Amino acid sequence: MNPQDTICALATPNGVGAIGIIRLSGETSWKIVSSVFSKSLENCRTHTVHFGTIKESDGTLIDEVLVTLFEEGKSFTGEESVEISCHASPYIQQKLLALLVTKGARLATPGEYTQRAFLNGKLDLSQAEAVADLIASQSKSAHDIALKQLRGNFSSELKNLREKLIHFASLVELELDFAEEDVEFADRSELKTLVSDVLLYVGRLARSFELGNAIKNGVPVAIVGAPNTGKSTLLNQLLGEDRAIVSDIEGTTRDVIEEVLNIDGIGFRLIDTAGIREGAEQIEAMGIERSKAKIEQASIVLCLCDGSDTSSVDAVEKWTNSLRSQYTGKKIGLVVNKLDQVSDFDGKGIHISAKFGTGIDELKNWLVDQVKGDFNLSDETIVSNARHHEALLKTAEMLEKASQGLDEGITGDFVAMDIRQAMFHLGSITGDISTDDLLGNIFSKFCIGK
Amino acid sequence: MNPQDTICALATPNGVGAIGIIRLSGETSWKIVSSVFSKSLENCRTHTVHFGTIKESDGTLIDEVLVTLFEEGKSFTGEESVEISCHASPYIQQKLLALLVTKGARLATPGEYTQRAFLNGKLDLSQAEAVADLIASQSKSAHDIALKQLRGNFSSELKNLREKLIHFASLVELELDFAEEDVEFADRSELKTLVSDVLLYVGRLARSFELGNAIKNGVPVAIVGAPNTGKSTLLNQLLGEDRAIVSDIEGTTRDVIEEVLNIDGIGFRLIDTAGIREGAEQIEAMGIERSKAKIEQASIVLCLCDGSDTSSVDAVEKWTNSLRSQYTGKKIGLVVNKLDQVSDFDGKGIHISAKFGTGIDELKNWLVDQVKGDFNLSDETIVSNARHHEALLKTAEMLEKASQGLDEGITGDFVAMDIRQAMFHLGSITGDISTDDLLGNIFSKFCIGK
Repeated sequence: MNPQDTICALATPNGVGAIGIIRLSGETSWKIVSSVFSKSLENCRTHTVHFGTIKESDGTLIDEVLVTLFEEGKSFTGEESVEISCHASPYIQQKLLALLVTKGARLATPGEYTQRAFLNGKLDLSQAEAVADLIASQSKSAHDIALKQLRGNFSSELKNLREKLIHFASLVELELDFAEEDVEFADRSELKTLVSDVLLYVGRLARSFELGNAIKNGVPVAIVGAPNTGKSTLLNQLLGEDRAIVSDIEGTTRDVIEEVLNIDGIGFRLIDTAGIREGAEQIEAMGIERSKAKIEQASIVLCLCDGSDTSSVDAVEKWTNSLRSQYTGKKIGLVVNKLDQVSDFDGKGIHISAKFGTGIDELKNWLVDQVKGDFNLSDETIVSNARHHEALLKTAEMLEKASQGLDEGITGDFVAMDIRQAMFHLGSITGDISTDDLLGNIFSKFCIGK
Repeated sequence: MNPQDTICALATPNGVGAIGIIRLSGETSWKIVSSVFSKSLENCRTHTVHFGTIKESDGTLIDEVLVTLFEEGKSFTGEESVEISCHASPYIQQKLLALLVTKGARLATPGEYTQRAFLNGKLDLSQAEAVADLIASQSKSAHDIALKQLRGNFSSELKNLREKLIHFASLVELELDFAEEDVEFADRSELKTLVSDVLLYVGRLARSFELGNAIKNGVPVAIVGAPNTGKSTLLNQLLGEDRAIVSDIEGTTRDVIEEVLNIDGIGFRLIDTAGIREGAEQIEAMGIERSKAKIEQASIVLCLCDGSDTSSVDAVEKWTNSLRSQYTGKKIGLVVNKLDQVSDFDGKGIHISAKFGTGIDELKNWLVDQVKGDFNLSDETIVSNARHHEALLKTAEMLEKASQGLDEGITGDFVAMDIRQAMFHLGSITGDISTDDLLGNIFSKFCIGK
């Protein structure tokens, strides 16, 4: 694929609607559209809109359209561009694209617009990736993280870190230049502080991925408990509604049904609610397969017990503890229900009455706390991209090695090598350091038209 | 709903993509967008595009957007308008709409943009209806009919007819003014010619609805015949491919499957091909329920027989004739297959060899002829809207009455009344004569954003 080609694709979602946009990018965009449009665009200015018709080569009218012009340097891709705003009919869009191709444009490959924006320096790599995340975001938190990344907040933090490391490396390299004289220009304790500062920061960024990933993809939550502990009532309370319980029609496929609960802009996916809604789940002492499978899938598990039954509370508390030691990566919560039936209860766990809605806000806060941990969603940079996470882990690994080297008093050239490796991994996030493989891998995941 | 409100809605299809457009229309559109946009739009010119950001009232960034301005009189609706081009994420679009509403816009009702375009004289009613048809069109013919209607071809023909009738009415009314003097100003034979000319034309337009409707919705075609007459082979030949026959998985739902065959820009819907594809249909002497049900649904029926079996040909020919007298509204075709196995066959019907593709083009031409009849798709106006069809029938009815009145020599005032009724029905098509009920009924069928 020639990166100099003028490319075209549908930029709006597929389907039927009032308006659809076909976007062209490349140095012959204006010329190609001019050749099919009812008006010459030659002497028009950038950022202007023109009404007219587009006809097939045989004179058949395809549609009445609006054409918007962007000159080189002033478009999303940085290239000369045109947006054709037509009626959002798949038939018309197909015809227009086919016509543009006969006039010299080429259909864009997935992500090619954003890739061009990156190659022309309009976005760095992490910003380009944020475009896809932004479009896919379904909750406030996911949206905010993606938009911050698109706006370059993450990139500028990485730039700061890189500058610190460059400073460090230059000090070490200076030392190397005078190695024969056995002089230590760089104050090694200062170097150590610098590395451990950066390491701390990189480590925190890497750690934030757990949160970022949860926000991006939703947090899977399982509600488990014996029959009649009030799972269905709790589910309805959490979802803030009183939906009818799905009736048990024989032979109905029992797909895993998920309900999404949005708290503070974080999406919690309540997994396998079919069993709960149907009320058909027969769990004996919480031991059976179905519960296990749910727990395996979940990041957060709510173990529900009937607070009016002391032996049930004890059993579930024990079980909760055993789950905690079994699944160290998961957050396991003990939820004691039906406390409207108990005069005073001072046991462990989150105390609720699902029936009356008591304690539901506390439960929601607890859920949010499990996800947020010690991160501050509004001010702090949260990493939500697996590739960035991996690069940060590799950066941290190299910084650890450098730090260890400093402790062990190894020579500057080895330390410098580790630091350079760390910088390489850090730079791969924004694309300051990139390979064709990396680019191909990132942009091919985009849909066509982006 | 106040028609003076500034309205807003998503104009592009729902879903995820690179670009989505939110459209505002109404006299405060620029002001509302200015209040949330990073740049003042006050002194900007119409048909210009502006890059910037849109923030929530609390300063939270929603998205980076392009804003396109249209001043009053120069937009689709004829009102001051703005198009906000954002990232096509349902979350962002929702947030933007909610923000615009807090700033004084109102969510548009279905079809409200097009309704405003009509009320502001930018489109007549039949053109407005064509917008919806254009967007939904899936074949070249459906697209061409809708686009012609949108461009006003139909409207101008109706205008011609109306003018003729106005001329007629004025002659008759002149006669009425001098009724006491018992003078016949209007030459009654001239009047009769005029009415019958208009009637002929209106009748042809009304008759074209059968074709227009078939093109708009596709033409349902049934292929019926005994087992082993080659239905499956014919289906594959028509579809121009050799798809695998759907294997018969026990318990698979047998939904009615349709394949669409596009010939000369007309969509033929081959109904209930599941039976054919599965090869599981057991028809004895073509009598059974399933064949009957298919024939009931179809506009065109292809009765297939095995040309190498003389008794089969005779039986199917008889059956075809009986179907023709039973279903006078349907086109019933006798198709004689397997003629590669017969040295010379001179019986009736369309002669094919599905196996070798012989005669398939003739069969396709026959299909197209059944739909087109004596209409000329490229030059003639084809009515495809049921409301227009109904209005044309009512117009014709009144013209018949007027024509009869002239024959019977009834007085001018009664004839004039019929002609005025005819003009009323004709005028209702373009909305020259319209009621609120009619408008509400038309525009509520649009989706929101149109």
